[in-house]
Amino acid sequence: MTKITASIITIGDELLIGQVIDTNSAWMAQELNKIGVWVQHRIAVGDVWEDIWQALDEEALRSDIIFITGGLGPTADDITKPLLCTYFGGTMVMDLPTLEHVTYLFEHVFKRPMPLLDRNKKQAEVPDVCTVLKNERGTAPGMQFEKNGKLFFSLPGVPHEMKGLMSDHIFSLLKERFKLPYIGHSTLLTVGVGESYLADMIQSFEEVLPENVKLAYLPNYGMVRLRLTAHGAERQTVDALLEQQFTALKMLVQEFVAADEDIAMNEIVGRLLKAKGKSVTTAESCTGGYIAHLITALPGASAYFKGSVVSYDNTVKQNVLKVNSNTLEINGAVSEQTVIEMLQGALNLMQTDYGIAVSGIMGPDGGTEEKPVGTVWVAVGNKWHVETKKLHFRFSRERNIELTAINALNLLRLFILKNDTA
Amino acid sequence: MTKITASIITIGDELLIGQVIDTNSAWMAQELNKIGVWVQHRIAVGDVWEDIWQALDEEALRSDIIFITGGLGPTADDITKPLLCTYFGGTMVMDLPTLEHVTYLFEHVFKRPMPLLDRNKKQAEVPDVCTVLKNERGTAPGMQFEKNGKLFFSLPGVPHEMKGLMSDHIFSLLKERFKLPYIGHSTLLTVGVGESYLADMIQSFEEVLPENVKLAYLPNYGMVRLRLTAHGAERQTVDALLEQQFTALKMLVQEFVAADEDIAMNEIVGRLLKAKGKSVTTAESCTGGYIAHLITALPGASAYFKGSVVSYDNTVKQNVLKVNSNTLEINGAVSEQTVIEMLQGALNLMQTDYGIAVSGIMGPDGGTEEKPVGTVWVAVGNKWHVETKKLHFRFSRERNIELTAINALNLLRLFILKNDTA
Repeated sequence: MTKITASIITIGDELLIGQVIDTNSAWMAQELNKIGVWVQHRIAVGDVWEDIWQALDEEALRSDIIFITGGLGPTADDITKPLLCTYFGGTMVMDLPTLEHVTYLFEHVFKRPMPLLDRNKKQAEVPDVCTVLKNERGTAPGMQFEKNGKLFFSLPGVPHEMKGLMSDHIFSLLKERFKLPYIGHSTLLTVGVGESYLADMIQSFEEVLPENVKLAYLPNYGMVRLRLTAHGAERQTVDALLEQQFTALKMLVQEFVAADEDIAMNEIVGRLLKAKGKSVTTAESCTGGYIAHLITALPGASAYFKGSVVSYDNTVKQNVLKVNSNTLEINGAVSEQTVIEMLQGALNLMQTDYGIAVSGIMGPDGGTEEKPVGTVWVAVGNKWHVETKKLHFRFSRERNIELTAINALNLLRLFILKNDTA
Repeated sequence: MTKITASIITIGDELLIGQVIDTNSAWMAQELNKIGVWVQHRIAVGDVWEDIWQALDEEALRSDIIFITGGLGPTADDITKPLLCTYFGGTMVMDLPTLEHVTYLFEHVFKRPMPLLDRNKKQAEVPDVCTVLKNERGTAPGMQFEKNGKLFFSLPGVPHEMKGLMSDHIFSLLKERFKLPYIGHSTLLTVGVGESYLADMIQSFEEVLPENVKLAYLPNYGMVRLRLTAHGAERQTVDALLEQQFTALKMLVQEFVAADEDIAMNEIVGRLLKAKGKSVTTAESCTGGYIAHLITALPGASAYFKGSVVSYDNTVKQNVLKVNSNTLEINGAVSEQTVIEMLQGALNLMQTDYGIAVSGIMGPDGGTEEKPVGTVWVAVGNKWHVETKKLHFRFSRERNIELTAINALNLLRLFILKNDTA
């Protein structure tokens, strides 16, 4: 069975200049991988004719399928469409179904009071050598080309439009076209142990891994994901092998496992609360609402989340959460006693089963010798028990906020597992 | 003056498989651009010897400077260091200052109870043909190589370590080594107008732009940034030209300008509040704390932000924000009257000058025929005046939350500009 390979070319000066972060490629790679297409190369080029041309030439030599994203907007800095037209030896023509769709979008969806501009109409022009893929979510159509047996797809750079085109057309098209191998992944999320120690714990496991199974270490925010990837012709065989290896791996690192799938900490906690039928609140100082945001980023959070108080200012800690003014005066806002009282205040106010309270110094300013930037107190608990922990981070404000949130959620997870054994 | 060009090679299966998003390249490109180095190519390859080797060969032909990130971790899936050693014709040797540094980090910073593992010590091994760049923030050192007059830098993939190495060593090194051109950027942030209409408004301006000035349209979350980029040998000349063109551009789209620099909406609002000496609160239902998070993501937010109530559940809207139960019963949680009362409740509770309240249906579930997914009510105001707006989005939950937050902040911005003319 031959491996079907893909390259992703992203086009746009904004990527090279770093003004936008490329999230498209990650999504595409992940989804393509699921259907057995191996993305082996990703490349970003500017809005430069020769660079795009060269990238097309090079990637066509390398891969079976070439995805091109970006460079299809209605404005003048885009040169992709004419280039593709020349590259594949076509002539630009107006695609009437696309024009109808663009007109419909402007009139009925965007509800623009202004008339359709020539440059909007131009979006419906395509090379006559392509197959048009209808973009339900926007004005720039997807285009499919073929040259020397290689498949090319040109897609708009707007993430939700690109995703829509992939889901509406391309995945099914690829499955029909190629006899795809099956690629399986299993991911273990570990917390509280470093990459090196994990590696030592599973060294002998790793040494005897079958040839078609790969292990990767993915450290992120104090957690390390261990990912096993296996491939083969038959789904059943691959899955069986993967499960066998995954079970062995899990046994070896058992004590550090937070989840046996690739999910984020907020989802682990959300599922746990849902399974237990319990609710949660947060009282946040230094994280400024970020923990509540993580919880509510998931659909269905209303089943276990009621609300939060962001008590950034001490007056809010006192007036809303009823933290004692003496506590703040004597211990300071970043202290064990303060987070305990914040937690109790939030549990009372929101009437939930569990709560998280955090107070810390995220930086870059506000640190003292006694409480340097990165000092955080966390309390988790219910109305009978509270557990606290002092954390120390040493990073940027953004990363400190993220790490505080992840750690606080993990502490709540451990608390629930220990105290709610029903 | 010759243009100094760079390529960025990111290494790691996790990038190709889409399990992590590459944020490093964007930061590197942005910062390199500031010092006059033009990133013309970015490429991602897997942990495959031949692919990395080929990428080094190809990018060395293309660019003056080649950055390599990732593939330096302590675990077995990393092959980058031995490859670099072979590629540049060296032998692996133990670098004693690095070993000392790694030992110090484990003992004093990570405070690991466990002993230093062989694989940790191995991180201090480097090819004898490289110049070691000390990594203050982690165990994997940066490495500088040279071949056929091209400069190569190998950096760890952990973002804050990579950033540290760039800032501590590489920028100054490049400035000394090359006579760098000056590259200037000016960005205008517009709100409330589409890319196509902007393009039509400034078409004649764009047509006569000097050859060394480029214009880019960067649409994002209902805003469009217009970026002018100019380059030349002399900073003064470039800046003068850029300013002249930028002023002309600003005049043409004046009515839609939210900021004349590349900053995010939360920063615009934060600066405005700071300048006016006023404070703000938020009462958030559907955004679940995300607006508060955006406000507090900025250092110094305590000057104008006191706190927020996330009132996800109706009981919290009633009990904490004192929304009338009749209001909720008759109008529903997603209604004009509810956000008005949420706003008043938050202003009373938090004692701030201004407030934002939002309630909506973010999806994917919870929509009705009358109030489909994407329906949002926003209220902004102070204790004397309130303005409301009904918004309609049609995207994913994540994007709906983001768009609601950006739009709500923008409404507050407009409200302050209109009502606080002091």
